[in-house]
Amino acid sequence: MSKTPEALLAWGREVLASQPFSVLLGAELHALSRGQAELHLPMSPKLLQQHGFAHGGVVSYLADNALTYAGGAAMQVPVVTAEFKINYTRPAIGERLIARAKAMHVGSSQSVCTCEVFVVKEGVEKLCAVAQGTIARLPDAPQPRASQEAP
Amino acid sequence: MSKTPEALLAWGREVLASQPFSVLLGAELHALSRGQAELHLPMSPKLLQQHGFAHGGVVSYLADNALTYAGGAAMQVPVVTAEFKINYTRPAIGERLIARAKAMHVGSSQSVCTCEVFVVKEGVEKLCAVAQGTIARLPDAPQPRASQEAP
Amino acid sequence: MSKTPEALLAWGREVLASQPFSVLLGAELHALSRGQAELHLPMSPKLLQQHGFAHGGVVSYLADNALTYAGGAAMQVPVVTAEFKINYTRPAIGERLIARAKAMHVGSSQSVCTCEVFVVKEGVEKLCAVAQGTIARLPDAPQPRASQEAP
Amino acid sequence: MSKTPEALLAWGREVLASQPFSVLLGAELHALSRGQAELHLPMSPKLLQQHGFAHGGVVSYLADNALTYAGGAAMQVPVVTAEFKINYTRPAIGERLIARAKAMHVGSSQSVCTCEVFVVKEGVEKLCAVAQGTIARLPDAPQPRASQEAP
Repeated sequence: MSKTPEALLAWGREVLASQPFSVLLGAELHALSRGQAELHLPMSPKLLQQHGFAHGGVVSYLADNALTYAGGAAMQVPVVTAEFKINYTRPAIGERLIARAKAMHVGSSQSVCTCEVFVVKEGVEKLCAVAQGTIARLPDAPQPRASQEAP
Repeated sequence: MSKTPEALLAWGREVLASQPFSVLLGAELHALSRGQAELHLPMSPKLLQQHGFAHGGVVSYLADNALTYAGGAAMQVPVVTAEFKINYTRPAIGERLIARAKAMHVGSSQSVCTCEVFVVKEGVEKLCAVAQGTIARLPDAPQPRASQEAP
Repeated sequence: MSKTPEALLAWGREVLASQPFSVLLGAELHALSRGQAELHLPMSPKLLQQHGFAHGGVVSYLADNALTYAGGAAMQVPVVTAEFKINYTRPAIGERLIARAKAMHVGSSQSVCTCEVFVVKEGVEKLCAVAQGTIARLPDAPQPRASQEAP
Repeated sequence: MSKTPEALLAWGREVLASQPFSVLLGAELHALSRGQAELHLPMSPKLLQQHGFAHGGVVSYLADNALTYAGGAAMQVPVVTAEFKINYTRPAIGERLIARAKAMHVGSSQSVCTCEVFVVKEGVEKLCAVAQGTIARLPDAPQPRASQEAP
C-alpha cells in the first residue's frame, strides 16, 4: 500500500534526520511525491571551497540525495544510488541551493532519475548543475511492498 | 616552470586547507604528482548515512576532489571539475577512505581523469567506487604558465 | 548573425548528409531550433543486436548526435561532443527511434545538453534511453560569430 | 562451470557474428577472458563524420560493446549495458580503433567496467576515448550458471 503525500514527506524527513552527514550539511526536504523530490541546502561558510563558491562536493551531495529520494519515492522500497553523473554549469554563489529530481523511468529493481540544481541569489534561481543517475533497490530488500526505511 | 614534487604537495595541502568544506570533512592529501593524486578521509560518525555507511555524498566528494587534484597537478593551472560520473561498487564501511586519481589525457584547456575509491577496513583496502570526469582550466586563467592557486 | 529557423534546419540536414556514418544508419533531422533538436532513425534489420532489439550503439549514436545538434544550434559555432552519459531504460523494439535533445546551459565555450530517446511501436512512443553530455566548441573555431559548418 | 579461454573467445565471436549492427560496422573480437575484452574496428569511409574522423557514435559503439563483453565474460550470464559514460579525448583519425575493457567490480547482478579506446595511426596507438559503465544481468536470466547466449 502506498503512502499518502503527507506520510511520504514525513517519512522522507525522518530518513534525512537519521543521516548524520545530511544533518551536518543542513539539508532540508521541501517536497516529496511519487517520483519527485526537492531538497534545499542553505549556504554557510563551512560548505565553501577556496574561491568562495559552494564546494563541488556539496552540490553533488545534494544532487545525489535528491536523485535517491525521487527514485525511492517512486519505487517505495529501500534504495541506494548505484551511480550518477553531474555537470556543473555555473559557480554556486548564493544563499541557498535547491535540487529538484524526478524519476524518468521506474522499474522493479531500479529507476533512472534526473536532477537540476539551482543556486538562489537575491531571490533569483540559476541553474548550477544537472545530474542523472540510477537508483537501485537494496539487494536484500523485500519485493513489492513499501518499506519503513527507504530510501 | 613546473614545481618540484615537494613544492607540488605542499601547495596542494595549502589549497586543501583553504577549502572550508574539505576541512569540515577532514580530508588529507597524501600524495600529489604530475597527473596523480591520493586523498584520504578518516571515517567519523558525522560522515555516515542512516545505514551506518559513509554517505554517498562523502565518497563522491572525495572522488571529485581527487579528480580535480590529478587534473590540476597535470595541467598546473587553476582548474575546476566540469563534470564527473561515479559508480558505487560496495557500501563504504571501514576506518578510512582512499581516493587515487590519475590524468588519462591532458590537453591545454582540460584533462580527463579517472579515480578509484577504496574503503580500508582492518587494514584491507576494498574498491568502493570508480569515477571519471573532466577537469577544466578556469575560463579566465592565464594561459600556459603554472599558477599559485590551482586546482 | 543567427540563422532563420528554416536556414538552421536546412543547414543541419546538410551537415547530416555529409556524415557518412549517419547516412549509413539512416538518421533524419526532423527539427532544429536554438538549443533543441529532434533526430529520427527508422529501424532496419542491420541496426539490431542478437536479441532483435536496436543495438545499444545505435541508440547511443542517436543520443550523441542529437546532443551535438542541440548544443551546436544553441551556440551556432562548430562543435563536438566532448563527453556524454546514457542510461538505457527499455529494449528498443519498434519501427522508429526518436531522440529529442535540448540545451540546459549554454556557455561561450561549451553547452550542457540532455536528451530523451523514444522507441515508437505501433504509433506509441516509449522512453528507451536518457542521456546528458557536454558539447564543446571546436578548439580552433573562430570566437563568437556563427559558422557555416557546425555542429 | 566456467568456459576455457578458447571456448570463451569462440563463444564471444559467435555472439558478435549474430549482431547485425556489429557486422555492419566490421567489429572484430581479438581477446576475451574473465573480465577483460579487446575489440577492434578497422576504419572505413562509412564510419566517418563530416570532418574525416570516426564518428563519435562509432567510438561509443565500440566502447559500449567492449564494456558489455568484459562484464559478460566476468559474470558468465546474459547481460546488457545498463548505462555508460564516455569522454572523447582526441579525434579518431587512423586505420583502426581498439577498445580494451575490464571489469573493475563484479557482483551477482551487475558489474562495473571501464574501457580505453585507442586509435591506431601508422602503427602508433593513441588514446581517443575513456568510458565507464554498468553491465547488468538480463532481468530474467537464470541465476548462477553460465549461459549460452551472453553477453
